[in-house]
Amino acid sequence: MRPLWIKHAAQLVSLSGENAPRRREEMSELGIIEDGSVWIEDGIIVAVGTTNELENLFETRSIEADIVDATGHLVTPGLVDPHTHLAYGGSREHEFEMRLEGATYMDIMNAGGGIHSTTRMTREATEDELVAQTTLRLDSFLQHGVTTVEGKSGYGLDLETELKQLRVMKRLNELHPIDIVPTFMGAHAVPQEYKGKEEAYIDVVVNEILPRVAAEKLAIFNDVFCEKGVFTPDQSERILEAGKILGLVPKIHADEIESYGGAELAAKVGAISAEHLLKASDDGIKQMAERGVIACLLPATALYLREEAAQGRQMIDAGVAVAISTDCNPGSSPTTSMPLVMNLACISMRLTPAEALVAATINAACAIQMEDCVGSLEVGKQGDVVMWNVSIYQELQYLFGVNHVGTVWKKGIQVVG
Amino acid sequence: MRPLWIKHAAQLVSLSGENAPRRREEMSELGIIEDGSVWIEDGIIVAVGTTNELENLFETRSIEADIVDATGHLVTPGLVDPHTHLAYGGSREHEFEMRLEGATYMDIMNAGGGIHSTTRMTREATEDELVAQTTLRLDSFLQHGVTTVEGKSGYGLDLETELKQLRVMKRLNELHPIDIVPTFMGAHAVPQEYKGKEEAYIDVVVNEILPRVAAEKLAIFNDVFCEKGVFTPDQSERILEAGKILGLVPKIHADEIESYGGAELAAKVGAISAEHLLKASDDGIKQMAERGVIACLLPATALYLREEAAQGRQMIDAGVAVAISTDCNPGSSPTTSMPLVMNLACISMRLTPAEALVAATINAACAIQMEDCVGSLEVGKQGDVVMWNVSIYQELQYLFGVNHVGTVWKKGIQVVG
Ligand SMILES: [Zn+2]
Ligand SMILES: [Zn+2]
Repeated sequence: MRPLWIKHAAQLVSLSGENAPRRREEMSELGIIEDGSVWIEDGIIVAVGTTNELENLFETRSIEADIVDATGHLVTPGLVDPHTHLAYGGSREHEFEMRLEGATYMDIMNAGGGIHSTTRMTREATEDELVAQTTLRLDSFLQHGVTTVEGKSGYGLDLETELKQLRVMKRLNELHPIDIVPTFMGAHAVPQEYKGKEEAYIDVVVNEILPRVAAEKLAIFNDVFCEKGVFTPDQSERILEAGKILGLVPKIHADEIESYGGAELAAKVGAISAEHLLKASDDGIKQMAERGVIACLLPATALYLREEAAQGRQMIDAGVAVAISTDCNPGSSPTTSMPLVMNLACISMRLTPAEALVAATINAACAIQMEDCVGSLEVGKQGDVVMWNVSIYQELQYLFGVNHVGTVWKKGIQVVG
Repeated sequence: MRPLWIKHAAQLVSLSGENAPRRREEMSELGIIEDGSVWIEDGIIVAVGTTNELENLFETRSIEADIVDATGHLVTPGLVDPHTHLAYGGSREHEFEMRLEGATYMDIMNAGGGIHSTTRMTREATEDELVAQTTLRLDSFLQHGVTTVEGKSGYGLDLETELKQLRVMKRLNELHPIDIVPTFMGAHAVPQEYKGKEEAYIDVVVNEILPRVAAEKLAIFNDVFCEKGVFTPDQSERILEAGKILGLVPKIHADEIESYGGAELAAKVGAISAEHLLKASDDGIKQMAERGVIACLLPATALYLREEAAQGRQMIDAGVAVAISTDCNPGSSPTTSMPLVMNLACISMRLTPAEALVAATINAACAIQMEDCVGSLEVGKQGDVVMWNVSIYQELQYLFGVNHVGTVWKKGIQVVG
């Protein structure tokens, strides 16, 4: 494989710096290199700098590289989507029409729809069918500049199907260019067959499913939907602590619908991230900042559900590291567009264009412990790069609702464009 | 030119019916043909029906056509964007950052920014520069399935520049595949040099610019920004009536920021459409329904400005024909994505997926008096067609934030895909 040399970028956003979640002013530091260049060999970044610097480095050594002229283009790291539910069966456009007629998320769920209909269809689907359906979604993520995604189970809600979802992601991680980071989320909902017997289901999750997931190394994280009517903070804590003993890092769907102590619990158990946080309390935010829990905010979900978006601006000002994500799922956010999510982070949550880009790259990478490999253009990291059809990063957010992706490379191989 | 035969569409949305604005239940009638076919010759639709029907019609006559297999795909008319300000100079991403720090549209305008900065840059730009810059926007519209756009002047605010903007659109209408329908909007704002002398500027518009625009046949419509602090309803009426005498059809930017009698004025002067209408009064809506004024709603602008979207659902229920548009402009809606606007029509205004599609095609065509040529797939209309990467129309709105355009034909010629 010949080296890849992307040169003369109008702006190369390197995001160089510490491999740690960026906070406050750090979220505005993009490490921009004008007339920027990046050199990739065997899928790994070997040099980053001005084109002049790289010319001095390489041209004297007469190494032949595939050269891409990025004149007039913005170049950034591949985007990272740190929160998706992408491996599911079926489709739910009929429920979208229901919602347009006034039904709430909880109405649909109580009517046996929502997550339960996806659970039914995911249980019915074969592993091959799920691989095929999820491949289309991964292709769409790539088209939108996303080169790394997290993916959650949680549409199985039984041993067999939870393992099936995680195996689907494991296979796709090998088959598809995108890196998939797996999360076990058996506690996504109480399955209908356990209605009124929540504790019994938690026993199954803790005693049967979690140990199998850990033994087969099918997940890095353990996530739970801590919400009134789903799992209480105490129940959530039990599930997360059980995962910790098995080596799974906690994540929490927290305070999406009501202020319910989810942010506080994330701090208490030392979660890597807390998700949604639309109704998180000020005290919960403060505790997250103190404990270093990353806020993973999902403004596309808020838009789709007609909810007020999370207080992203205030969280950054309070010292919380913010990441953003599509929340790709069939019920409340059927989208693969991280560019739109960046736009919404600005429009709905008042992040600046720079902060939105940090939230979708290095902070997103930190939220799924991938910061050693992706999230910035630095020597030693993977050659995951997007060349955009705009020339400065502000335009990415300003010219909204449009997918400005031009070319995408994953580990130095062109996969889009 | 060989005929074009698009066949085997999973769903062909014909929108057949009366060439008139659709209201109430009519806005849900898509005229769907399963296993649909459309045959285009010399840019005009010659037959529409099931593939079986068209096979019977044409195969016996052994006419050779370019055949496109649309198996598994949704096929619709090209989208129509009935409200844009696309021919402008410069760019305003810096003001986007200002807004993220809390400035309002009116704050920015009063600080000499907003429309005044675009006016300055449009005045400074040569006709060729404006043609080049606007071409990129038109290309992006095509990529998003839009084959017909309305375009407004109104960033000149003097005789010379208003004519320049309109001439740019006239040239582009010839150079570019997209049909551009021109609107004069000299009353888009009071130019800074006329501050405090609004009536004097209106005299210029009425006595100097409008007659030249009409004499040179540079516009079909005459639009005015009727809003507190810009033009009063009385001033707006004077400008619109002056245009009517010269053959220009009235449009009104109405009730965007305050309820100001704009909807009522639209009914009174017999405007073809009223735009924005975020704060339109119930009585104004009722009068629009009675008088047959089309509501042209702009949910992307509302999103971008963090305003509550217009009451689209209620307007349809009140008998108003609703169209939707990007409002493409550098200040309050820098986007070219009609697919996103359809999504937002559902999400923010509670239109159903079918209503959103009608609002973006036949009703949009009626709003710019193009319904004889475009807006539906019917015999005699232009062969403006989009083949989408989804199979049913509901998915267009459900899988939101993604541009599902596959292939676009303008007058039977493939221009995208
Ligand atoms: Zn989630
Ligand atoms: Zn406008």
